[in-house]
Amino acid sequence: MLGLRGVDSKALESILDRADALLPVVRDGVALPDPPRSAVIGLLFLENSTRTRCSFEVATRRLGHQPIVLTGRGSSLDKGESLVDTAANLAAMGLDALVIRSAIAGGADLVARTIGIPVVNAGDGRHEHPTQALLDVSTLRARLGSLAGKRVLIVGDILNSRVARSNIHALMALGAIVVLVGPPPLLPWTFAELGPGVEVAHDLDGVLGSADAVMMLRIQLERDAGRAVASDYRFAFGLTAERLERLRPDVPILHPGPMNRGVEIDDAAAADIARSSILEQVTRGVAVRMAIIDRALEFPAS
Amino acid sequence: MLGLRGVDSKALESILDRADALLPVVRDGVALPDPPRSAVIGLLFLENSTRTRCSFEVATRRLGHQPIVLTGRGSSLDKGESLVDTAANLAAMGLDALVIRSAIAGGADLVARTIGIPVVNAGDGRHEHPTQALLDVSTLRARLGSLAGKRVLIVGDILNSRVARSNIHALMALGAIVVLVGPPPLLPWTFAELGPGVEVAHDLDGVLGSADAVMMLRIQLERDAGRAVASDYRFAFGLTAERLERLRPDVPILHPGPMNRGVEIDDAAAADIARSSILEQVTRGVAVRMAIIDRALEFPAS
Amino acid sequence: MLGLRGVDSKALESILDRADALLPVVRDGVALPDPPRSAVIGLLFLENSTRTRCSFEVATRRLGHQPIVLTGRGSSLDKGESLVDTAANLAAMGLDALVIRSAIAGGADLVARTIGIPVVNAGDGRHEHPTQALLDVSTLRARLGSLAGKRVLIVGDILNSRVARSNIHALMALGAIVVLVGPPPLLPWTFAELGPGVEVAHDLDGVLGSADAVMMLRIQLERDAGRAVASDYRFAFGLTAERLERLRPDVPILHPGPMNRGVEIDDAAAADIARSSILEQVTRGVAVRMAIIDRALEFPAS
Repeated sequence: MLGLRGVDSKALESILDRADALLPVVRDGVALPDPPRSAVIGLLFLENSTRTRCSFEVATRRLGHQPIVLTGRGSSLDKGESLVDTAANLAAMGLDALVIRSAIAGGADLVARTIGIPVVNAGDGRHEHPTQALLDVSTLRARLGSLAGKRVLIVGDILNSRVARSNIHALMALGAIVVLVGPPPLLPWTFAELGPGVEVAHDLDGVLGSADAVMMLRIQLERDAGRAVASDYRFAFGLTAERLERLRPDVPILHPGPMNRGVEIDDAAAADIARSSILEQVTRGVAVRMAIIDRALEFPAS
Repeated sequence: MLGLRGVDSKALESILDRADALLPVVRDGVALPDPPRSAVIGLLFLENSTRTRCSFEVATRRLGHQPIVLTGRGSSLDKGESLVDTAANLAAMGLDALVIRSAIAGGADLVARTIGIPVVNAGDGRHEHPTQALLDVSTLRARLGSLAGKRVLIVGDILNSRVARSNIHALMALGAIVVLVGPPPLLPWTFAELGPGVEVAHDLDGVLGSADAVMMLRIQLERDAGRAVASDYRFAFGLTAERLERLRPDVPILHPGPMNRGVEIDDAAAADIARSSILEQVTRGVAVRMAIIDRALEFPAS
Repeated sequence: MLGLRGVDSKALESILDRADALLPVVRDGVALPDPPRSAVIGLLFLENSTRTRCSFEVATRRLGHQPIVLTGRGSSLDKGESLVDTAANLAAMGLDALVIRSAIAGGADLVARTIGIPVVNAGDGRHEHPTQALLDVSTLRARLGSLAGKRVLIVGDILNSRVARSNIHALMALGAIVVLVGPPPLLPWTFAELGPGVEVAHDLDGVLGSADAVMMLRIQLERDAGRAVASDYRFAFGLTAERLERLRPDVPILHPGPMNRGVEIDDAAAADIARSSILEQVTRGVAVRMAIIDRALEFPAS
């Protein structure tokens, strides 16, 4: 599982159906039968991530497998080793699969071409974050049923977001209409490659009323001019308590977390019982990752 | 398990009895039967701790459950997420219980009010550290039998010590007489809230002879004026080889570790075969945490 | 397992044979029967190491046991606790064995004398790294059969290398002729202690043709003058594409990793299908560590 570009709807729905079937294991603690042989899954997280790493770790354990966690600090990469050499070493230790997060766009793909075990992309630079998009569409499907013809707003820094990129691929495969909302500097220069089904808007207020779902992206306050633009950003693109009024009462609100409350999303939106799907996303994230790991181990050659 | 303030002796003894029953698992490697379903326990350690984190991790594994460890560095809290949002996310991943250490006094309590899974306080700022106090009283009970009427000295920085605070609650519930020993700036302003059963002393030498047990607190050399006062502190409040002579020969000596040998405790006291209970504390720490986790999973709603 | 100095060939071969028997578990995923009781193994890694820590962690899990990982950052050692006190605490928690890597030469030995559980040395300062040497000779045996009379080149910074030191002991015990190759400042002053069977050379080109095996050591670019001498080092002691021509076509090439490609070893040598044994070393590392842990648990008193 390296990316969602060009994925077809059948393959996508097959993964989503499997995740749905695994949801009771996550949500209600239903026990799975022990696997015939416990696999050892490497979680190579070279970028910081509490959430995604934990989600993969819980998924691994709930399947009856064993995680081995490796982070960037103090690793052999700090000693100048390449990503591929590091991954090849882990594969040579007999790991059954490798989950990789790194700042290198295309990094997971490069590794997958070299080592003989399944590789799952947990985020590669500004390229893709396919399991995040899968959990997003899993959540949307549960709320909206078929996504065909549904208008899904993605709001924020589209240009630099691997979450947005993977979601665009997944939503288009499922027939949704994707509306990218943000200021021009944070939108791609061209949408030619995306084909029909993608719209662009600079005015959030103008498109909120017609939305079937809203996906707020995280603004990275810890970087660059983040903190300086926080209040301006909220004014123009935040899902504020006021804007919440313009959304239909059943429209799901998504956010990949961690949230900057009071910046891209107000407390009122995050906590809206009827619409906020943010914790549902987290729960489905574990189920989706279980489905992905399970499938990777089934087809180790792929 | 959030704190020991106001705990009643019956509840306390029930936990201690359970820990005693689990001690052979820790000490002699007796195997427990596998649990019907392996639980996943989150260990959210936002303050550094080798000892306590490991103790909880061993306890989790000895019960047949699976730990997921999260530390502060590089976590979503570094990205500005609140403690409650982080914990709510972990709960949404289907964790069965959450153990929390943080610098926020009341943090574990705040989380427990919000998320729907059991929360264990592994130290919250300068507030409480209940499992440390439980292992301390477990050790004292094993050495002294009933603690009713026994004089237990707690020596050091009482004011800032969550270990002391939790111990005061536990010892008073079991009927012990607590003697707090330290220089005035490191003692609380008032003991009105503690009620009868708590005494205060500024002269360690004056109270050593009547002690039934001595609990030395760690002085935090890595902070503030720590290193500068080390030798003065030892002179006034250290359990030196000389002071050891004044203790009765069967009086247990406790220390929560890590020890500053030659500061608050001399080698002679730490290594005293008849009296030092310091490694016994560590062993009982695992048993106590097994009891706490086991109980938390039994009553997930509490 | 603390070091290989003075090891006899029979004990060595017994460990190597056990590792060979365990190799299918690592390489082909053959399942071992569950152990009667799952042991908890502490991995106390006070020096950074992705590779060795992971290898021990995989070995532990493949045996059906549970690892508890502790690293230096934020540990009680940061708070001034001694290595022995830290280890004694872990032993008191009921760990079944302790694997230790530290910068303290003799550290593992010091701990083993104090605590009552088996200790495995995973590298102690510039002293020994016995499991690395075991995986090296395991790899050489698989390629060359008996090592008696075989000429094994060890190339690089011999003086500061615990890998070299442990290998010298192991290779001599198995009857190999060890040829130490490096510039005089990076070779020991005297070889008197090593006895016959050790030769020294300053000219790599002069000894390559007679080699039965070549073990390249890592140059530590991240330290001292490392980066400044990289190209000079490669010119004099690197296993370059040109030097590869002078090696017999069946001579195994070893490197403990992580490699500095283009410094001590060229891509052509690292990737040489017939000769590079570098990933084979990694695989055998897991099998060797399984054998060591298994034996340690068998004889907990030793």
